[in-house]
Amino acid sequence: MPRSQGSGAPIASPAAAAVFTTVLTRGPASRVDVCRLTGLSSAAVTKAARPLIEAGYLRELAPTGRTAPGAGRPASPLAIAPEREYFVGIKITGDDLIGVVTDLGSRIVTSRHRPVPGFDVRTDASTTSMEPADVVAAIAALTTELLDEHPGFRERTHRLGVAISGDVDRGTGTVRYSPFLGWRDVPLAALLDEATGLTTTLENDVKALAVAEHWFGEGVGTSSFALVTVGTGIGSAFVVNGGLVSGAFGVSGEIGHVPIGVDGPRCHCGATGCLEAVASTQALLTEARRATGVDDLTIDQAVDLARSGDQVLRKVFAIAGRAIGLGLAVVANLLGPERLVVSGEGLDAYDLFEESIREAFSAQAYGSAGRCGLTIRPLPFEEWARGAATVAVQCMVSASG
Amino acid sequence: MPRSQGSGAPIASPAAAAVFTTVLTRGPASRVDVCRLTGLSSAAVTKAARPLIEAGYLRELAPTGRTAPGAGRPASPLAIAPEREYFVGIKITGDDLIGVVTDLGSRIVTSRHRPVPGFDVRTDASTTSMEPADVVAAIAALTTELLDEHPGFRERTHRLGVAISGDVDRGTGTVRYSPFLGWRDVPLAALLDEATGLTTTLENDVKALAVAEHWFGEGVGTSSFALVTVGTGIGSAFVVNGGLVSGAFGVSGEIGHVPIGVDGPRCHCGATGCLEAVASTQALLTEARRATGVDDLTIDQAVDLARSGDQVLRKVFAIAGRAIGLGLAVVANLLGPERLVVSGEGLDAYDLFEESIREAFSAQAYGSAGRCGLTIRPLPFEEWARGAATVAVQCMVSASG
Ligand SMILES: [Zn+2]
Ligand SMILES: [Zn+2]
Repeated sequence: MPRSQGSGAPIASPAAAAVFTTVLTRGPASRVDVCRLTGLSSAAVTKAARPLIEAGYLRELAPTGRTAPGAGRPASPLAIAPEREYFVGIKITGDDLIGVVTDLGSRIVTSRHRPVPGFDVRTDASTTSMEPADVVAAIAALTTELLDEHPGFRERTHRLGVAISGDVDRGTGTVRYSPFLGWRDVPLAALLDEATGLTTTLENDVKALAVAEHWFGEGVGTSSFALVTVGTGIGSAFVVNGGLVSGAFGVSGEIGHVPIGVDGPRCHCGATGCLEAVASTQALLTEARRATGVDDLTIDQAVDLARSGDQVLRKVFAIAGRAIGLGLAVVANLLGPERLVVSGEGLDAYDLFEESIREAFSAQAYGSAGRCGLTIRPLPFEEWARGAATVAVQCMVSASG
Repeated sequence: MPRSQGSGAPIASPAAAAVFTTVLTRGPASRVDVCRLTGLSSAAVTKAARPLIEAGYLRELAPTGRTAPGAGRPASPLAIAPEREYFVGIKITGDDLIGVVTDLGSRIVTSRHRPVPGFDVRTDASTTSMEPADVVAAIAALTTELLDEHPGFRERTHRLGVAISGDVDRGTGTVRYSPFLGWRDVPLAALLDEATGLTTTLENDVKALAVAEHWFGEGVGTSSFALVTVGTGIGSAFVVNGGLVSGAFGVSGEIGHVPIGVDGPRCHCGATGCLEAVASTQALLTEARRATGVDDLTIDQAVDLARSGDQVLRKVFAIAGRAIGLGLAVVANLLGPERLVVSGEGLDAYDLFEESIREAFSAQAYGSAGRCGLTIRPLPFEEWARGAATVAVQCMVSASG
């Protein structure tokens, strides 16, 4: 069931949505550029932009004077007014909520953490159990804290974006399945609408990050784009033919369960040789302990030792990096994205991975698929929450369009 | 550079293209159904359909009388007039051209084979060399033969679709790279426009098959769809977010070069463990010869022996099937298609593969990705050429839309 729309920018037509999105993601942009990028006529752009300018979402910058000779009055580029509306973004992790307030341009203006009450590690260390009501209350409290930080925030904030790992249906705002929370079919967005008074958008966390990269990061202007995240889990999300790949049954981007070695270690999903069973933070740590014989080695110690030249540990990282590179090549060979970004908290030590990732990627990428731009970098934790806020921005644009 | 448009159905707006495509692929359809499927108003559907009816591309069937009580005059479902226009489809293989004439509804009305002159096996058995001019002349001659078969064909045929393996740019009609022909950057469509007098559309062969399945086969009505072909090579093509996945650099769907076993056999692409190095017809034959010690075993003999219960050969097929099943699971885990079709001349003996394909698929598919419908069946060779003709139909619709 589609849910209620929040207030926000006056976007009453697909043309207005296209103009606003273009200025938001590619601006400041001259009207000529907006026409070219949207395929709309100059008159249509002017008509679409006017109510957005009147409502304060777009503004005309001072003429740049870079007009062609004889072209009449100089062009006034269009830009967004970033402080016109704010968005709350929250990422739910296993033991923590990370919240941010962003402006319209997805710049983080403040951020906060908050532990989740009722956090409970079960026998299986990857699984926790939280009551939806507790999580809703904690998100509402964090939202209040964030919006109370500055007098302007509450008045100009209408939307909340929430990112969570697992199978999430953005359309109905339902968490269909979250293994780490132990949830099935929780109508989280509706519960949060009620608890926060904001219009809530729910999205899978990796897809939310991909939206942020596609609109405001390295995916801007690309025809197709892939994001891979490496950490506790290994996930990915793709933008193809102008939209996220969502999966007919809720599953997509599960690069963590691509079989990299047929006879590799058993994965928690039941299969063997999955990328996640080789290169997730836990898999890496297990292998590092086995290789060194140090049963209580921590991941930070493993990183330090590898950086200081420990060959055994360097090899452990290299093997994980090779598996990641093969996984990236699978994505490149199947989808042929224009750009691939690899990120995640598991890449804080990406100096230990990068070479083997690139080597394996180059060896396995088929023909010109290897020309895809490949960026490897760590991911500040707030970025997840920023991704959630970006999805809320995107929903403002498309809900009214 | 976009190329000239052929004559054909009078499709002058996106609405007309949507109505025509809907009736073509989902029809006969009531106007109510067309409205629902296109999202257009009843008036818009009537306006879009009128010139198509007048030009003989659509027709109104006799009222079905199945209208609701009090709903006014009974509905006349819209249907295509399949014989209004014919299309030539040609698939270029290593040693042969396969040509068909199809009607508007993609039904094959005639088919012919023709050897390609200048066929020349090099030392590398997978590579042949043909001069573009020879291939163009052979295609033109085959087209003439096909169109001369029936008085109505030539007059009602405006478009030629050509399918070829490799990196093909449909937009410019260029073969960017065809390993098996040894071609780079051959403007084949323009050469064929000239030689045949038809408007030529060029597409990668697997993508052309996927278009045919999406419009007229098992992909009809699905939100996302994947086709995998198994034979001399192993390829795939995907329909996601309403369009083919084309790859930013010309490469996509290269499931044959997904690494299924890290330490598997070396692939002609230079990597190791590629699906194609395990499960292509040649790889299978090589393994069958090795396993049996019979150096001149043929693939047909291997199939016969396996069918009559030879356990060694049955295992060879099962191992190839397992690799194919893992490859399918990779596609399902990454894209989450609604339906997956596995076909190709390599599956003529699919009774020997099917069980191990399904087993490996089920074991590796992640969560609800495994709910994707999976069809495994052989592929009559004419289907490739039919796919080419379907791409020509699609281009008629979108070129004018
Ligand atoms: Zn797994
Ligand atoms: Zn290969």
